[in-house]
Amino acid sequence: VEKMKRLAVSLWHKIWEVGREDPRRVIHSLKVGLALTLVSFLYLMEPIFKGIGQNAMWAVMTVVVVLEFTAGATLYKGLNRGFGTLCASSLAFFVEFIADKSGKVFHAVFIGLSVFVIGFSATYLRFIPCIKKNYDYGVVIFLLTFNLITVSSYRIHNVLRIAKVRLYTIAIGCGLCLIMSLLIFPNWAGEELHNSTVTKLEGLARSVEACMNEYFKDAEIEVTRCNSSKDPIHKDCRAVLDSKSNDESLALFASWEPRRFRHCYRHPWQQYVKLGAALRHFGYTIMALHGCVESEVQTPRSVRAIFKNPCIRLAGEVEKVLLELAGSIKDRRCCSHDILSENLHEALQELNAAIKAQPRLFLGSTHGETHDVLRVAAAAAQQKPNKESGISLSSVKTDTSALPEFQSKRDTDHHSKDSDRKALRPTLSKIVITSLEFSEALPFAAFASLLVEMAVRLELVIEEVEELEKVACFKFQEKPNVDI
Amino acid sequence: VEKMKRLAVSLWHKIWEVGREDPRRVIHSLKVGLALTLVSFLYLMEPIFKGIGQNAMWAVMTVVVVLEFTAGATLYKGLNRGFGTLCASSLAFFVEFIADKSGKVFHAVFIGLSVFVIGFSATYLRFIPCIKKNYDYGVVIFLLTFNLITVSSYRIHNVLRIAKVRLYTIAIGCGLCLIMSLLIFPNWAGEELHNSTVTKLEGLARSVEACMNEYFKDAEIEVTRCNSSKDPIHKDCRAVLDSKSNDESLALFASWEPRRFRHCYRHPWQQYVKLGAALRHFGYTIMALHGCVESEVQTPRSVRAIFKNPCIRLAGEVEKVLLELAGSIKDRRCCSHDILSENLHEALQELNAAIKAQPRLFLGSTHGETHDVLRVAAAAAQQKPNKESGISLSSVKTDTSALPEFQSKRDTDHHSKDSDRKALRPTLSKIVITSLEFSEALPFAAFASLLVEMAVRLELVIEEVEELEKVACFKFQEKPNVDI
Repeated sequence: VEKMKRLAVSLWHKIWEVGREDPRRVIHSLKVGLALTLVSFLYLMEPIFKGIGQNAMWAVMTVVVVLEFTAGATLYKGLNRGFGTLCASSLAFFVEFIADKSGKVFHAVFIGLSVFVIGFSATYLRFIPCIKKNYDYGVVIFLLTFNLITVSSYRIHNVLRIAKVRLYTIAIGCGLCLIMSLLIFPNWAGEELHNSTVTKLEGLARSVEACMNEYFKDAEIEVTRCNSSKDPIHKDCRAVLDSKSNDESLALFASWEPRRFRHCYRHPWQQYVKLGAALRHFGYTIMALHGCVESEVQTPRSVRAIFKNPCIRLAGEVEKVLLELAGSIKDRRCCSHDILSENLHEALQELNAAIKAQPRLFLGSTHGETHDVLRVAAAAAQQKPNKESGISLSSVKTDTSALPEFQSKRDTDHHSKDSDRKALRPTLSKIVITSLEFSEALPFAAFASLLVEMAVRLELVIEEVEELEKVACFKFQEKPNVDI
Repeated sequence: VEKMKRLAVSLWHKIWEVGREDPRRVIHSLKVGLALTLVSFLYLMEPIFKGIGQNAMWAVMTVVVVLEFTAGATLYKGLNRGFGTLCASSLAFFVEFIADKSGKVFHAVFIGLSVFVIGFSATYLRFIPCIKKNYDYGVVIFLLTFNLITVSSYRIHNVLRIAKVRLYTIAIGCGLCLIMSLLIFPNWAGEELHNSTVTKLEGLARSVEACMNEYFKDAEIEVTRCNSSKDPIHKDCRAVLDSKSNDESLALFASWEPRRFRHCYRHPWQQYVKLGAALRHFGYTIMALHGCVESEVQTPRSVRAIFKNPCIRLAGEVEKVLLELAGSIKDRRCCSHDILSENLHEALQELNAAIKAQPRLFLGSTHGETHDVLRVAAAAAQQKPNKESGISLSSVKTDTSALPEFQSKRDTDHHSKDSDRKALRPTLSKIVITSLEFSEALPFAAFASLLVEMAVRLELVIEEVEELEKVACFKFQEKPNVDI
């Protein structure tokens, strides 16, 4: 008894959870109940029953099968059911028209043959991709109705009446479903697709942040925060990567929905699917980045710390772009991509500069000197006209003359911001790396490279969002700082 | 007319293509046609008609709706339909039993109420994940049948007969479908899942190969071959990455199929899904690797050439493992994972050694000397007790003393194969790199790191395959070289 009780409680909890997660589910269930009760009245009320009779069953059946969660799905099924029935009725009449003139046996053979041929061709048609995608349900209903009418016609001679009543009742059922799903608390598939796109962008931003936190965390300080940071990377990112089929079906249903933005010429839903593909493409990099984070071979934490700031800045920029895109899609407004791209590029340049500024990595010193020592070899390898080459080749440079050189190089190559560089220098001075081999730097190099790759793929995402804004006719931002 | 003709030709071509791609589609279509014709006989033939009457329609309907492409899907739908009808009939009787004792108005109200309550709860039930996954269709049919019977019971008082005939006809329809799909050219969903897994493994192997070809191609020579190498990377890899929903539905259907390997205790289908997840995880790395290949910033070709051999070897090993796994799954035999892992590890070690052997990369010389010059700094940075430190620190080493040292280090650290090293040395001697900055090496580092990551993830795949072999009771290899 105890066990049963516990089971019941857990079951109840599960059921409650389903409704709490998305209250629209409860509303939808109530709608179905209501629609079924209404359609039952067709049968229960005397006057209506006289006209339609036993065929009211078809209306009940239609409601059960057609009323779906989203308005788009209901429209898809309802229209497919309607047209399928209509086509099948016409064809069935034609077949009966031919068969009717002949004897009983020929009639049976003819019916059998036509059932076979139509059954074969309709089933085969369902394998053709574009029909499978858009009209699968319609073809099934076509086949169903055709068979019912054609076979019935052998015994019952008033087939026209059957077909007509069937059409009427299905129309009543579909009509009721459409009213229910389009007018009473409608769930638009397009809206759902829109929201899921926003959620995906936000999820990716969270993943990137979690990845960076995990990679650059100080083992001591951020323990509490990072214990919970592994899950979101996987959960959010995987949700994006596995969203393909869901996106596509939502886009399909959405394409059946009426357009609610009159000034737009075409449906933007396919663009959402494309954006989803770009996001998945972007997500693959995050998964790889996450692989770097989890990898057993790691670059020493101290080395990572050198590059921490530009990396964090780039990732922060990526996050900012993702959240900005999410926000702009959410509010259906255009955002200024140029500014976004520019910031991203700046951050990229900075990371690039930081990496270029460490040609051979450091030989650190703790002797209270504030400047780190660049490798002699670096200068030699670059084979630049070096005024100090005589000295630098004859001894390991322990003076600070290399630093100004590297600084000036940085300044001319990349106009990165001063503030960040100043933040970087005290960090450098604290580092004590006596040796860093190529193989040790490798994991970080991969990390940095993936970060760069991520930024590049983000450009693709920005492009797709831009396209989406155009197609979906998002309104322009009112803020004055748009420089177009 | 010309246009119509061309359209017809292209349409015909499309239809033909669908059948040519998978001839089982034609067979399935023929099966549906045949089943429909057979079930129509129920209605057409006089003696049977007397017994079942108009309700033969339910059998026709069942065949149209239940007969699916794979045996598993047919079983899933058939059994769900059967049980749904059975449950609904029982419940409908119970409701009628209560309602029957009351007056006409109360009867109608009671029916309306029960339709609403059952409609609400059944729809709500469909949102619960585990029911949605396994019994969605059954719940729909339950709702349908319950409504039909309950509502009918208001007018017709011999409901028991309706329900019984409905059950019979549905049983006939389901039975016919099951015979058709299980006995006549059956398409097993499990088989399909099995084959798709093999295809995925092979596709991944092709992708890896294409990636490596693309990355290490000599711009001059392999133009013809590489033009076509970009497509397979994307096509094969994407097919794997997007396979989730397909896999899951196949596994679901397969779990309804009868087991054909009696000596196995449980269904291996969930393990196939898990393996699919591992393959997707593996695929993400390939996508990232492909990103490296396509990236605009590239390590100079000459540098890549240094590491070409160990990289190619590792990738070749990965491919070999993938193909071996594909083969073993295909033939349902166990393969020796230890040997596979060992080779993989050896290749990994070799790449590792090759990378470690270039601590600071080379300063090449074309002066006819056969040995390259290692950076002094390398030795200094390692801070090993170095007998030549006095010399090496005071001048840039241009002698050959460093090479033996690096060679001996290699020999002691990693027992890599001699043959490869010999092949490597002449390559080294040809290289003329005067400078390679960290930032230039970065893209290659990322590539190598991803390659290593790929090998690590391959281990996961191997583990999953091992588990699959256990669960699916693959037979052991007959070859004598298994060292267990």
